[in-house]
Amino acid sequence: MLEALRLHGDLIGKQGSRRRLNTPALVIDIEALDANIAAMAEFARRHKVALRPHSKTHKSADIARRQIKAGALGVCCAKLGEAEALSEAGIGGLHITSAVVTPQGIERLMALNAATRGLSMVADDGQNIDALDRAAAAAKQKLNVILDIDPGMHRTGVWNDADVMALAKRIGACKALHFAGVQFYSGRLQHVEAYAERLKSVLEQTARLARLVNELRQAGMPPAIVTGSGTGTHQIDATQGVFTELQVGSYVFMDTQYEAVDLHGDKSQPFKQALQIDSTIISANSPGLATADAGLKAFATDGPAPVLMKGAPEGSSYRFFGDEYGAVVLPEGKQLPIGSTITCQPPHCDPTVNLYEAYHVVKGDTLVDIWPVTARGRSR
Amino acid sequence: MLEALRLHGDLIGKQGSRRRLNTPALVIDIEALDANIAAMAEFARRHKVALRPHSKTHKSADIARRQIKAGALGVCCAKLGEAEALSEAGIGGLHITSAVVTPQGIERLMALNAATRGLSMVADDGQNIDALDRAAAAAKQKLNVILDIDPGMHRTGVWNDADVMALAKRIGACKALHFAGVQFYSGRLQHVEAYAERLKSVLEQTARLARLVNELRQAGMPPAIVTGSGTGTHQIDATQGVFTELQVGSYVFMDTQYEAVDLHGDKSQPFKQALQIDSTIISANSPGLATADAGLKAFATDGPAPVLMKGAPEGSSYRFFGDEYGAVVLPEGKQLPIGSTITCQPPHCDPTVNLYEAYHVVKGDTLVDIWPVTARGRSR
Repeated sequence: MLEALRLHGDLIGKQGSRRRLNTPALVIDIEALDANIAAMAEFARRHKVALRPHSKTHKSADIARRQIKAGALGVCCAKLGEAEALSEAGIGGLHITSAVVTPQGIERLMALNAATRGLSMVADDGQNIDALDRAAAAAKQKLNVILDIDPGMHRTGVWNDADVMALAKRIGACKALHFAGVQFYSGRLQHVEAYAERLKSVLEQTARLARLVNELRQAGMPPAIVTGSGTGTHQIDATQGVFTELQVGSYVFMDTQYEAVDLHGDKSQPFKQALQIDSTIISANSPGLATADAGLKAFATDGPAPVLMKGAPEGSSYRFFGDEYGAVVLPEGKQLPIGSTITCQPPHCDPTVNLYEAYHVVKGDTLVDIWPVTARGRSR
Repeated sequence: MLEALRLHGDLIGKQGSRRRLNTPALVIDIEALDANIAAMAEFARRHKVALRPHSKTHKSADIARRQIKAGALGVCCAKLGEAEALSEAGIGGLHITSAVVTPQGIERLMALNAATRGLSMVADDGQNIDALDRAAAAAKQKLNVILDIDPGMHRTGVWNDADVMALAKRIGACKALHFAGVQFYSGRLQHVEAYAERLKSVLEQTARLARLVNELRQAGMPPAIVTGSGTGTHQIDATQGVFTELQVGSYVFMDTQYEAVDLHGDKSQPFKQALQIDSTIISANSPGLATADAGLKAFATDGPAPVLMKGAPEGSSYRFFGDEYGAVVLPEGKQLPIGSTITCQPPHCDPTVNLYEAYHVVKGDTLVDIWPVTARGRSR
């Protein structure tokens, strides 16, 4: 594995080896990562809710194993390809949060369902439910299906309440499917920065979810699993008593977007910045500027710019400078010579991780391990 | 190779197999790609300038081979890791367009220089030049160094004209280095959409370059290679007689950004849209909306939104809908059922390619091959 990840002179276990990393490098501060995993596990235990963290954030079998060891039931996967990659790496308890609708996808889903334990799958469409049932029956399998309910963003899931009841019944009536529960994920509420505003929206939506769960119970279809939530709303969701498990993802790493969110309503920040990007200054011929080797291919670009954490003079800022480069804009009179290393906070952790083949895991200034980004690019 | 790229039921050579692709898929229209490669090769022959196309666009040994077969001298690489990957795949004539400044990077560079033929490398700093010389001498090698001149964007290269002369002399004085020429790349002019405006800026910059080249000749240091240019300025650069070779990249694929650029000043478009993204509709429960399986992890997000080319009703548009999804916004009364395939023009080709592990190569509606993205993620 290490060979395949191309060590390039990266020295595992040697003090100071972080400063010898080839860059741009996707760095994990292992102490911060483990503290985040422990903090969320403790939070879930305290609120008597289960965790199935979302692996779309880290795409890593190593991190999934740490989350499961800390008490998680398994992990969520955004795509079939992600679930295949984690299953091959030995991770069980996988829940796929996007529908699989093509014949070739359903064929792969059946192979995965046979190979892994505790798989579940969302659906939000009657014809898709029938297709899953036919495929599972043909493969002599039982498939756990979770009905996706649209919380109001109209991205995926069922919006009409009568349709929720009808589709749950339809899943229940399928011989080869097991109605395992419901999913309710409010993606657009996760980054609402003010706690009071987020609280109000979550409570409104959760009232509808609670009513639907109750109706399903009364109709003899109690959802064993009620899954949803995210890092931004976990604190509110956990106290409502409707979700049985949380799909939190970004808490393991944090990023500039989530740092701006008042997660617990008291301005405290329960999680540390575990994900960092190390980059090297490769050109410094112009006053006030230094050029780093991390650009548009090294960071997600859908959010704000990366934030400098270390290595640059106080008052410096980073801005994108093309596909391969970043500019460190320096305060008057300051310099940053070639060969210097800067450390950045990633702007949006999930799509940043997807750009790298490996994590360089550090403890202080020592490289302690290299982990593959197991499901990198497995979006199909 | 095919096994490693996970066929997932993709059927090579079978008519209609494009419609069975697992998605999101990075698709190459092979006829458009070959037409683009032939058109640029013919353009270069007509203008008596050499080509060393930039592989940072495609990161593909298969495409590099096609460009070289059509007459290119080799390919440029943005990063050392890219050059290593293409060298391992048998591509020669590599020129690395970013400086390598760390001890561990220089060590790798020497190994690459020993393993590949016709390698060249940029430098823009005196101490870096000395470090390259020491390493090459210690390895008993000769390294081709191209002096990077800053065309005025202050990203990389030497800005001060006196420094250009001094550093060229410094390279020439190094026993283990060969002064192979100069690089002059105007990244920020490539996307100036109006021809007249781009022309004016290029001519101003080229006058300085011509003067510097002349001074180097008079000082007994004639630059055998004068490399630079890009898809946006190639037509102007080729007619100025200063560049000996062009680093054009995006012309092989095209994207929405370059489609907006009047490349030849006559509103003609000499290149075809060869790179396309196929995506599947996976949810369609809300009027006026359908949700596709390609989102922020399937397209570059530093530019405009992807543009729908095929598969959606006239008047539809695509917008990002989170990490894993895109929204197809439909005209009043139109629908797009789950399982439908849409095809999008990528917004910015280089960082889009970097997100995928493979190209799915099609001719009409038939999948004819799968090519790895050889240097994917090899940014370090």
